[in-house]
Amino acid sequence: MSQALAQAVITALAQRQWTLATAESCTGGLLGDWLTNIAGSSVVYLGGIIAYANSAKQTLLHVPTSTLATVGAVSAETALDMAQGTAQALGATVGLSTTGIAGPGGGSPEKPVGLVYLGLHLPNQSLVEQHIWPYDRLGNKQASAKRALEWLLEQLGSA
Amino acid sequence: MSQALAQAVITALAQRQWTLATAESCTGGLLGDWLTNIAGSSVVYLGGIIAYANSAKQTLLHVPTSTLATVGAVSAETALDMAQGTAQALGATVGLSTTGIAGPGGGSPEKPVGLVYLGLHLPNQSLVEQHIWPYDRLGNKQASAKRALEWLLEQLGSA
Repeated sequence: MSQALAQAVITALAQRQWTLATAESCTGGLLGDWLTNIAGSSVVYLGGIIAYANSAKQTLLHVPTSTLATVGAVSAETALDMAQGTAQALGATVGLSTTGIAGPGGGSPEKPVGLVYLGLHLPNQSLVEQHIWPYDRLGNKQASAKRALEWLLEQLGSA
Repeated sequence: MSQALAQAVITALAQRQWTLATAESCTGGLLGDWLTNIAGSSVVYLGGIIAYANSAKQTLLHVPTSTLATVGAVSAETALDMAQGTAQALGATVGLSTTGIAGPGGGSPEKPVGLVYLGLHLPNQSLVEQHIWPYDRLGNKQASAKRALEWLLEQLGSA
């Protein structure tokens, strides 16, 4: 499943001669793992930043302290900043980000477990998606990574 | 398997109040994924850098161009630089790195498929291990990530 999806993303990006960088909070490296399971992915995938701590989001992805202090790490704004930040940091055409609450802890009435924002930085636009997954920690991570790749593929016109 | 091992690493680091950052080339995010599968891992695991392209190793981990030009990305020197670089970049106590040739392509007589260097940056020492795994791409990634966590646990005196 993830193998075929990752292969389709690599192929679609390679056809455009575009490169990809990831910025992962809630998925913790799963996106990078899936992408690098594909032989030849290094032509497209430059790497990424696993920004699990807020300090990493600030230092490595340049998410403003004010954004983290007002709307928080799990927000549309942070997802967008992360996607743009990783594309810039790695010099990639496309930036893809995940930030959310995988659970079981960390939820609140406003931001429940399973709430995830995905960010996508493309050459001519930046997009964000919100999801509330109903799964456990590993299920929420996998649903986020799977949807991120499907979404990128859709936006590349290859879905 | 990986779940129990990652849990043991998180517990051992938490007992010392140490933090961890990863720098992954050949494992591509798998280490981060395994660590963040553990609920509560955010206390210890700050995040990491997936430095798949050489440019990422240089820009984000400060591996010197001269090192990449002389001994190459798959070398003891690069593994050590990556481990130190990610610890510095994320402000972590411990840095753990992987760099190697997962296959099926990329091998040579001097550096065969399966050759992997693991780097470990600890407060008072830096260590490196070399392995030549006999597996396929996914097997080599998993063997590298598993050994990296086992090795860290051994060095923490908790094996």
